Amino acid sequence: MKNIIALTQIEIETFLPGNRLDEAQALLEPYKLVDPTEVESEEGWKGILKECEPEIILAAWKTPTIPEDYHESLPSLKYVCYLPGSIRKLIPRATIENGLKVTNWGGSISRTVSEMGLLLMLCCMRRVAHWQQQMHYKAGWKNQDTQTQSLFERRVGLHGFGSISQQMVPLIKPFTENISAYSPGVPDSIFEELGVKRAETLEELFSENDVIVELASLTEKNYKIVTEELLRMMPDGAAFVNVGRGLVVDEEALARVAKEKDLQVGLDVYGVEPLPDDSPFRGMPNVLLLPHLGGPTTDRRRDAGDLSIGYLKAYRETGEVEDAITLHVYDRAT
Amino acid sequence: MKNIIALTQIEIETFLPGNRLDEAQALLEPYKLVDPTEVESEEGWKGILKECEPEIILAAWKTPTIPEDYHESLPSLKYVCYLPGSIRKLIPRATIENGLKVTNWGGSISRTVSEMGLLLMLCCMRRVAHWQQQMHYKAGWKNQDTQTQSLFERRVGLHGFGSISQQMVPLIKPFTENISAYSPGVPDSIFEELGVKRAETLEELFSENDVIVELASLTEKNYKIVTEELLRMMPDGAAFVNVGRGLVVDEEALARVAKEKDLQVGLDVYGVEPLPDDSPFRGMPNVLLLPHLGGPTTDRRRDAGDLSIGYLKAYRETGEVEDAITLHVYDRAT
Repeated sequence: MKNIIALTQIEIETFLPGNRLDEAQALLEPYKLVDPTEVESEEGWKGILKECEPEIILAAWKTPTIPEDYHESLPSLKYVCYLPGSIRKLIPRATIENGLKVTNWGGSISRTVSEMGLLLMLCCMRRVAHWQQQMHYKAGWKNQDTQTQSLFERRVGLHGFGSISQQMVPLIKPFTENISAYSPGVPDSIFEELGVKRAETLEELFSENDVIVELASLTEKNYKIVTEELLRMMPDGAAFVNVGRGLVVDEEALARVAKEKDLQVGLDVYGVEPLPDDSPFRGMPNVLLLPHLGGPTTDRRRDAGDLSIGYLKAYRETGEVEDAITLHVYDRAT
Repeated sequence: MKNIIALTQIEIETFLPGNRLDEAQALLEPYKLVDPTEVESEEGWKGILKECEPEIILAAWKTPTIPEDYHESLPSLKYVCYLPGSIRKLIPRATIENGLKVTNWGGSISRTVSEMGLLLMLCCMRRVAHWQQQMHYKAGWKNQDTQTQSLFERRVGLHGFGSISQQMVPLIKPFTENISAYSPGVPDSIFEELGVKRAETLEELFSENDVIVELASLTEKNYKIVTEELLRMMPDGAAFVNVGRGLVVDEEALARVAKEKDLQVGLDVYGVEPLPDDSPFRGMPNVLLLPHLGGPTTDRRRDAGDLSIGYLKAYRETGEVEDAITLHVYDRAT
C-alpha cells in the first residue's frame, strides 16, 4: 500500500511552499509522488491506483478523476484530501454516497473573500470605477461637485452571516459599529458575540443600511431573492457589493436600478461566469467589476495547504476528518 | 460688537448639519449671519467688518479674505475659525505674524485619508486598475495565469508616522501585525504603543516591505526623497501607495519603474494637481489613479464642524485655542 501525492510542480509550489511538502510527505509515508501532467491516459491513472492501492490521495486541479466505482475497484481508498475548492470534476457524486471522505480548502479561503468585501465597499464609497474611467481615459479631475463618502460611521448590512460574513466583522469594526445581518438560521449567540444587530427581514436590511454586502448562500430559496423591489429600497447614495453568489441577485434588475438610481455597485461574482462580453455592467461608471478573484488569492493558497496538512494529521491519528464533504454540501458546491 | 458667521447655505449644510449650526450660533452670540455670495465687493466686506467689529469669524471657502492690516483696521478681531483646510487664500501671512488666532480642520480629516491609504493598498493587491480596464473596456476575464495578492500577513512599511499614518495602524492590524515605519522624529513610545517596528533607514523600509504607504510630510529635506534607487529596492510584486504629498516622490522615476518592474501603484496625490492630461500615469494598467480625494470625504466634513465647535467652546471659556496655526505650519500648508 502506498498513498498518492498527485500534484504538479506548480501546485506544489502554490499550495505547499516552504516545508509544507515535507510535512505532507511525512504524514503520507509510504507514498508515491505522481505528476499528473505525466499521466497519459485514464488507463495509466487506473494502473497507478491499482499498483499503489492508496488509502489517501493528496490531490489538486490536475489530479485525474477518482473512479466512480472506487468502492469496488479500489477498496483501499478512504480519503481524498483535495487542496483547492471545486471538487465536482475530481470527485463523482457516487463516491461520496459510498462513504469516501473528501476535504477541500473549505473555510481557509474565507478571510480573503472577506477582504474582497471590504475592498469593494471602500471602492464604492470613493467611486473608484468612475474615477478609473475618468483618470485613465478622459484626463479627468475632481471639481467642486465631486461627492465622496467614507465608510466611517456608516450602516453596513450583511446578507448572509456564515463564516465569510462573520470574518468581515473585524475588518469593518475599525470603521463603524453599526453592523447588522440577515440570516434566519444563525443563532443569536453569534450575533451577540460579534456585536452585530439582527435584521428581521430583508426589507429591513436593504432599506436601513448605507452599504449592503451580499453573502447569502445559493439555495433554492435564495435564487434571485435580491429583487428589484429590494434594490430600490436602498437609500440614495448607497452601495451594493456582491462577493457571494451571482444567482442570489436578479442581475438584470440590478443593472436597471444601477442605471436609474444613485447607487454604487461592486461585483466580484456573477450569475454567468465568465461574465458575458455584452453584460450591461461592462462600461457602467458606477459599477466596479472584478473577475471572481475573491478567494483565495494566489499568495494565500498556502493557507489551504496548512488546512490540508491539519486534516492529514487528524486522519492519521484518528482515522477521521472533520469537515468531510457531505452530499448536502456536494450538491450545493460549484 | 457682533461676531460673524460668513458661510453659504451649502457650507452650512456640509459642515454644520443637524443641530451644529444652532450650537455654533449659541457660542457666537451676538452674531451676524452673512452669506458671502451676497457680499458684492471687497468694500462691502470691509463695511460689514467695520459695522460688526467681530471678535470671532466663523469662515469657509467662500468667506472673503481677512484684511492684511486687520490689527489696525479691525483690532476687535482675535480669532478666525476656518472650517476647511487650506487657509492661504483667506488668511494673509501677516495676520498670523500679528497674532491672529486661526484654526482649520486639522486632524479631523486624518481618518478619511488613512481609509484612502487602506483602499489603495487593497486595490494594488487585487490589481483593481488593471481589472477595471480589462472588465470595462476589453471584455476581460481571469485566466490560469492570473495573480492576486492579499494584505493578510504582508509586510507593510509606512513612510512618515504622523497622525494619518498612526491612524492607519488600527485599519491595517486586522490584516497583518507586520507593520514598520520610518520617521526619525517620532519617539519610540509611539511606536511601542501602536505595536509598530521602527525602520532605521529608508533603504530598509523600501527593501524589506511588500507594501509602502507614502505619508511623509513635504519638507525641504523630503523633496523627491523617494528616488528611483529606493523604488527599485522594492521586492517584485510589491505595492507603492501615495496618500501624502506628491512632491515627496520623484514621479518621473516612479513612472519609469512602474513601467519596467513588477510593481502595483496607487496614487491619490501628485506633484502637480490637477494631474496633467499627458501624465505618463494615465493609462498605465498597474497604476490606480484618484484625483486627490483623500480627505475629508464630503459626508465627513461634519467632523470638521464638530472640531470647530469644540474650538469655539474652548475659546469662549478660556480665550485660547489649542492647535492655532503657527507661522511654521502656515508656511508648510498648501
